Amino acid sequence: MAQQNYAADSITIRKIYDNALTSYESYDNLRYLTKKIGNRLSGSPQAAAAVEWSRQVMDKMGLDRVYLQEVMVPHWVRGEKEIGRVTNSRAGAADMNIAALGGSVGTGAKGISAQVVEVKSFEELEKLGKKKVQGKIVFFNRPFDNTHLNTMQAYGGAVDQRGGGPVAAAKLGAVGVLVRSMANEVQEVPHTGSTRYQEGVAKIPAAAISTKHANQLSDLLQDDPQLNFYLRMTCETLPDVLSYNVIGELKGTEKPEEIIVVGGHLDSWDLGEGAHDDGTGCMQSIDVLRMFKELNIKPKRTVRAVLFMNEENGLRGGLKYAELAKKNNEKHIAAIESDAGGFTPRGFGIDGTAAQFAKAKSWHNLLTPYGLHDLNRDGGGADIGPLKGQGTVALIGFRPDSQRYFDYHHTEIDVFENVNRREMQLGSASMAALVYLLAEYGF
Amino acid sequence: MAQQNYAADSITIRKIYDNALTSYESYDNLRYLTKKIGNRLSGSPQAAAAVEWSRQVMDKMGLDRVYLQEVMVPHWVRGEKEIGRVTNSRAGAADMNIAALGGSVGTGAKGISAQVVEVKSFEELEKLGKKKVQGKIVFFNRPFDNTHLNTMQAYGGAVDQRGGGPVAAAKLGAVGVLVRSMANEVQEVPHTGSTRYQEGVAKIPAAAISTKHANQLSDLLQDDPQLNFYLRMTCETLPDVLSYNVIGELKGTEKPEEIIVVGGHLDSWDLGEGAHDDGTGCMQSIDVLRMFKELNIKPKRTVRAVLFMNEENGLRGGLKYAELAKKNNEKHIAAIESDAGGFTPRGFGIDGTAAQFAKAKSWHNLLTPYGLHDLNRDGGGADIGPLKGQGTVALIGFRPDSQRYFDYHHTEIDVFENVNRREMQLGSASMAALVYLLAEYGF
Repeated sequence: MAQQNYAADSITIRKIYDNALTSYESYDNLRYLTKKIGNRLSGSPQAAAAVEWSRQVMDKMGLDRVYLQEVMVPHWVRGEKEIGRVTNSRAGAADMNIAALGGSVGTGAKGISAQVVEVKSFEELEKLGKKKVQGKIVFFNRPFDNTHLNTMQAYGGAVDQRGGGPVAAAKLGAVGVLVRSMANEVQEVPHTGSTRYQEGVAKIPAAAISTKHANQLSDLLQDDPQLNFYLRMTCETLPDVLSYNVIGELKGTEKPEEIIVVGGHLDSWDLGEGAHDDGTGCMQSIDVLRMFKELNIKPKRTVRAVLFMNEENGLRGGLKYAELAKKNNEKHIAAIESDAGGFTPRGFGIDGTAAQFAKAKSWHNLLTPYGLHDLNRDGGGADIGPLKGQGTVALIGFRPDSQRYFDYHHTEIDVFENVNRREMQLGSASMAALVYLLAEYGF
Repeated sequence: MAQQNYAADSITIRKIYDNALTSYESYDNLRYLTKKIGNRLSGSPQAAAAVEWSRQVMDKMGLDRVYLQEVMVPHWVRGEKEIGRVTNSRAGAADMNIAALGGSVGTGAKGISAQVVEVKSFEELEKLGKKKVQGKIVFFNRPFDNTHLNTMQAYGGAVDQRGGGPVAAAKLGAVGVLVRSMANEVQEVPHTGSTRYQEGVAKIPAAAISTKHANQLSDLLQDDPQLNFYLRMTCETLPDVLSYNVIGELKGTEKPEEIIVVGGHLDSWDLGEGAHDDGTGCMQSIDVLRMFKELNIKPKRTVRAVLFMNEENGLRGGLKYAELAKKNNEKHIAAIESDAGGFTPRGFGIDGTAAQFAKAKSWHNLLTPYGLHDLNRDGGGADIGPLKGQGTVALIGFRPDSQRYFDYHHTEIDVFENVNRREMQLGSASMAALVYLLAEYGF
């Protein structure tokens, strides 16, 4: 193992931060991606534009290699704006802000109308049984537990409703599902996101309802459990489409066969602009390479920025990347994923061996001056996850401050204006600093 | 010294955070202060409303004592919307976004017109000398150094231009001053803030110019150093007005004579809504007392929430508070000031004895689970500063994440919508946790 030179390393890391904080290139790139291309769900023309544009961006950087990986992706389309309406409660009619869950079937053009039964858990649903669920719309309304300091944990405690709600409800004969939006606060906007169906279980339409209207619907149900809800969604799943992971690479000067990945996902939901999710992660990953070039840092090991396709509704890009890595006998030593927003960095989660974690800990004093205090073993990420088990690759999650993430996540307000340049750039610098250390000393 | 009971303390602190993260009272109070009362410069009717409203808020909380401290405050008014205009550059005319600096004299109703001379430093100005400055408008255009991780340091490196620019320029015969806004980024909005005059030196009108237009003006001057600038401001200083510090108190159960202050300032600039500066600091201070009441935490030492008046343009409230503390032989052991925005907490700066700092360090493990990693000796704050030297009072600055602060500071976009409830509430909890430890164990 190379002898560590903390003094030289600390100078290099300081240069990285100085560069990141005074650079506008990545932020201008994010503006282009979000404003000129816009949201970019897998299979959409915008996703194709994002692939070609990001390829061109990296192509102009003088990297050692820029290439695409073919991957077939699902193609789900939202169709017309959804309608969710309480039609005949005692309090009268009320329109609700809803958004079809990704992958959901539609209701047919005429929509469906049914009574609503509210539950907070799958246990509660089971107890109700077929008799009380048959023919109804099941409304999953368990809120985030706001006492979690890290909002990702609150998300983790609620998102089973979105993923598993439709199957559980359909098994008891429900005709539709509403899921309380995945958000900490009471908001107007619904939060979309993927749901799942199961072979042999009826596919029923499922939508997210804004937290504000979830509260309102719950109140109306208290007053009138018999109320009727009208749901109309014309979303549908079309045939798979050819798309791509976009990859840029700097070859290692000493051990080019050892690969370090830094990445985010290029696709986004079809609401808003996919700014924090995950435009920032992609732009930061490219920015790591830009800084290495500009600062003339020649990595000893190979560094790859990977813009994964289809994280949101299929993970096909992540799976394809791992499949090809294995097929090509590539040796990945670490993969860093940025998919938690472009907020002020707090640290990294490292899913690796005890020795790898100890090594990361030995770099602690190089990272804490930049606010990177949180180093724990709760690492990984969706797109890098499929690499797990290929040699001793460490799966590293970049962890920015989480407080605002679920204000924007999967909504129409995940837009460029809600990204702060400095916060995003501190993220680029944090990833570049860690990549530098990994490339210098191995892992 | 009382024996510390870390297990019990950690449970109490967890309860504080649970309460803060699930409470909406303080956020609703902030909404009222910013939306119903609005901005509240010293001497304004809105400042009077803020005093009476915050007194009532604390009065309803069942505290041991709620009272006002009389203090005479300056009364500066902005007058009509300012005009700043390049009238005859080679490139034509151009309107610039400007805002009179607080305390500035006006230009007279007709305005003034003069050539502009740009400088980056006082040294540069001195070198130009009377001959090149006489009769001109001096344009101080030194930008923030964006390489500082903490934006407060970037501010500290630029704000001398705003405070000292007019005197330095007037000494050389200038007729007006433009100061580049105190901001990290290129923005449309000008940032106001106090300036100073000096006995015996002519008072000349001074305005902040938006960073975007500062760049533009600098470009125009490159092209045409002879260009004329028209400046019109009708601001003026009126006679002093009677106002108040607003104070709420929980009496200590064991050592009531030992006082811990937690505070922010109730006044704000007259642009925007004074949300981050410093509505959040005031609401957080009140929220500390609310949590102690709700959680039935009986502080062993006296805890005071102090809403200081006139931090922005005179500091009369802070001076009055210290004056009365001395006159009444009060014993302050610590004062915590929150005046850096309602952002995610990073820690505290402690201006105190080595023993006090060591004691705070001994609480480190109780605070780091909540992200409070930064404990340094760079403490204090404007309003609590005048207490310095009264016994061994420690002056403690609450330090939230600083990245976004100067996007909003002293502008029309320092509004409620730019405050995130959870970030603000984490601040309340952080201050409450520290106040609890100080009250339990002394300092």
